[in-house]
Amino acid sequence: MRTTGMALTAPGGTWEPYDFERRALRPDDVAVRVTWCGVCHSDLHAAEAMTAGSPPLVPGHEFVGEVTAVGGEVTEFRVGDPVAVGNIVDSCGTCTACRAGQEQFCVEYPTTTYGGRDRVDGSATLGAYSRDYVVREAFVYPLPSGLDPAGVAPLMCAGATVYEPLRRWNAGPGQLVGVVGLGGLGHLAVKFAVALGARVAVFTTSPGKEAAARELGADEVIVSGDPDAMAAQSGRFDLIIDTASAKHDPSPYLRALRMDGTLCMLGIPDRYEPEAMALLYGFKRLTGSGSSGRPRTREMLEFAARHGITADVERIPARRVGHALDRLSRNDVRWRFVLDLADLDADAPADSGVRSAG
Amino acid sequence: MRTTGMALTAPGGTWEPYDFERRALRPDDVAVRVTWCGVCHSDLHAAEAMTAGSPPLVPGHEFVGEVTAVGGEVTEFRVGDPVAVGNIVDSCGTCTACRAGQEQFCVEYPTTTYGGRDRVDGSATLGAYSRDYVVREAFVYPLPSGLDPAGVAPLMCAGATVYEPLRRWNAGPGQLVGVVGLGGLGHLAVKFAVALGARVAVFTTSPGKEAAARELGADEVIVSGDPDAMAAQSGRFDLIIDTASAKHDPSPYLRALRMDGTLCMLGIPDRYEPEAMALLYGFKRLTGSGSSGRPRTREMLEFAARHGITADVERIPARRVGHALDRLSRNDVRWRFVLDLADLDADAPADSGVRSAG
Repeated sequence: MRTTGMALTAPGGTWEPYDFERRALRPDDVAVRVTWCGVCHSDLHAAEAMTAGSPPLVPGHEFVGEVTAVGGEVTEFRVGDPVAVGNIVDSCGTCTACRAGQEQFCVEYPTTTYGGRDRVDGSATLGAYSRDYVVREAFVYPLPSGLDPAGVAPLMCAGATVYEPLRRWNAGPGQLVGVVGLGGLGHLAVKFAVALGARVAVFTTSPGKEAAARELGADEVIVSGDPDAMAAQSGRFDLIIDTASAKHDPSPYLRALRMDGTLCMLGIPDRYEPEAMALLYGFKRLTGSGSSGRPRTREMLEFAARHGITADVERIPARRVGHALDRLSRNDVRWRFVLDLADLDADAPADSGVRSAG
Repeated sequence: MRTTGMALTAPGGTWEPYDFERRALRPDDVAVRVTWCGVCHSDLHAAEAMTAGSPPLVPGHEFVGEVTAVGGEVTEFRVGDPVAVGNIVDSCGTCTACRAGQEQFCVEYPTTTYGGRDRVDGSATLGAYSRDYVVREAFVYPLPSGLDPAGVAPLMCAGATVYEPLRRWNAGPGQLVGVVGLGGLGHLAVKFAVALGARVAVFTTSPGKEAAARELGADEVIVSGDPDAMAAQSGRFDLIIDTASAKHDPSPYLRALRMDGTLCMLGIPDRYEPEAMALLYGFKRLTGSGSSGRPRTREMLEFAARHGITADVERIPARRVGHALDRLSRNDVRWRFVLDLADLDADAPADSGVRSAG
């Protein structure tokens, strides 16, 4: 299947339309016409990590669209069905993690939506900054009705990534949950934690984000650069979800935990470097999480539909992805860009710029 | 009360007998004639940390002895009772941690057996490298009958420190527990974990310790310097108790955990520095622990009595503590020195050297 994507073909280059071939459908494959694809921080990292001689980079791993064809063994989806796909498109299916529905920890490493290797033919996976995607049925989810599809796209990576640890560490009524950082992940962590019934506090470096945090449902906002405000948090939190992507010291958040509390890091620097005393004084637990498995992703979508949760997005024509990534690199987005892939159609209107947030 | 201890009075000096005054008994105090006191790694650190102008250092925070006097309000103990005392001798008693029986996390920091500050008169606490100790009844434990008292002394710090995380993270039948490092703490962690019903593996840098580990009850011994042996541990362990005191990378032990497994660090460097991916890939939890609260310490002693668990010790006259610390600094002890405080009596025989292990 021929399709068009937006690709970076050389380090530091410009984003250009790029035609390429998607694989012919296997019996358990679904072809999806992509309508909206979120722009994730890791897309930016992938672009920055590109080296001379790398194959073209087509990012995009949180998207929604419509089924355009199905393989002969596909049972759940039919042509025309609205669907959503996240950042995992295959896994071994047999290891302990896969059998537990935690494909994100597949012992053979899950196949990522882009930047991975297809398990059948070994080809490099190219992402959903493209008009079409072909994916195993097992990693396709029904798009919930009643939600704005553009706002659902970022749920498939950002949403799943924050929902997983909130559920795993039992965020709910009677709990005080902290969310560090208000961005693509953080704003969804606030929405989900509030909907789960927890009291929610946002830690932010930006005093200017207080009003936004409260609009999202946060009960408290703590400016993390204020030593007095931070000292006052000692021993308060049951769970803190740290979504800040830049490397930072987790110790102040460990101290903010109550005894037995959990600090879950979602950013992935080379190493975390907590103070030993901050960790051991009160059986604090430092853990990390990334992505989610199939059962929990499905649950997340159902929960989002029930509670009317979508990402707050800025829609942008796919051909303007370079602009979106520039702004994302300055954290200048509330809170997630989504690419409009119809912009890649031959009959698309001329560039209409960024459209209003959803 | 006048007593004699072994003190370091200047950095790099020699250990000398030192006469000093213990406080007069308060109504809730117990005076203990110390018979055996363990030599803990932290005693070595305290000696190394001594600076010019420091008051005399009298370490010792795991000891057994006999009650010689009681205050007017003491109810549990009588003169002549055999007792044991650990590394916490007081705490605020009112904070969340204290009310939960976790005085080791007292918000005002627990009063340590030496190197702390008495909560009543503010004086510096001096430890049980001394013939007598005066301590609040609440932090005194009955010495279990049927156990060698010299072997019980190290249970009061080393034993409590390893028993607490084993119990907290539910070491027991069906679990595979790893113990990193075979020394004062590690050898007791093996004994307790085996008695709790877990399968136990020892990680050691020293291939020469394999036989000793097996004698202690370990089912497996893994040489941590062997990359192949370490790679083979991936995803196996429910719980790993890391007793190694030197700073090291916890990542190999995080990788050895199964999904949801816990790595508990007992050494206290400035910071722990795990690889982010080692932590997040499988919801691994990094935590720390130190010492134990009163209820668990009592439980530990009862459990030790029921299972016949004591530390394997080398007995040494108190006046030879400098020699013991020299050897400890080279890890040359199996597995804990205990000082014989009777050596400080005026009528003690001349130095008889190290006596056989118990």
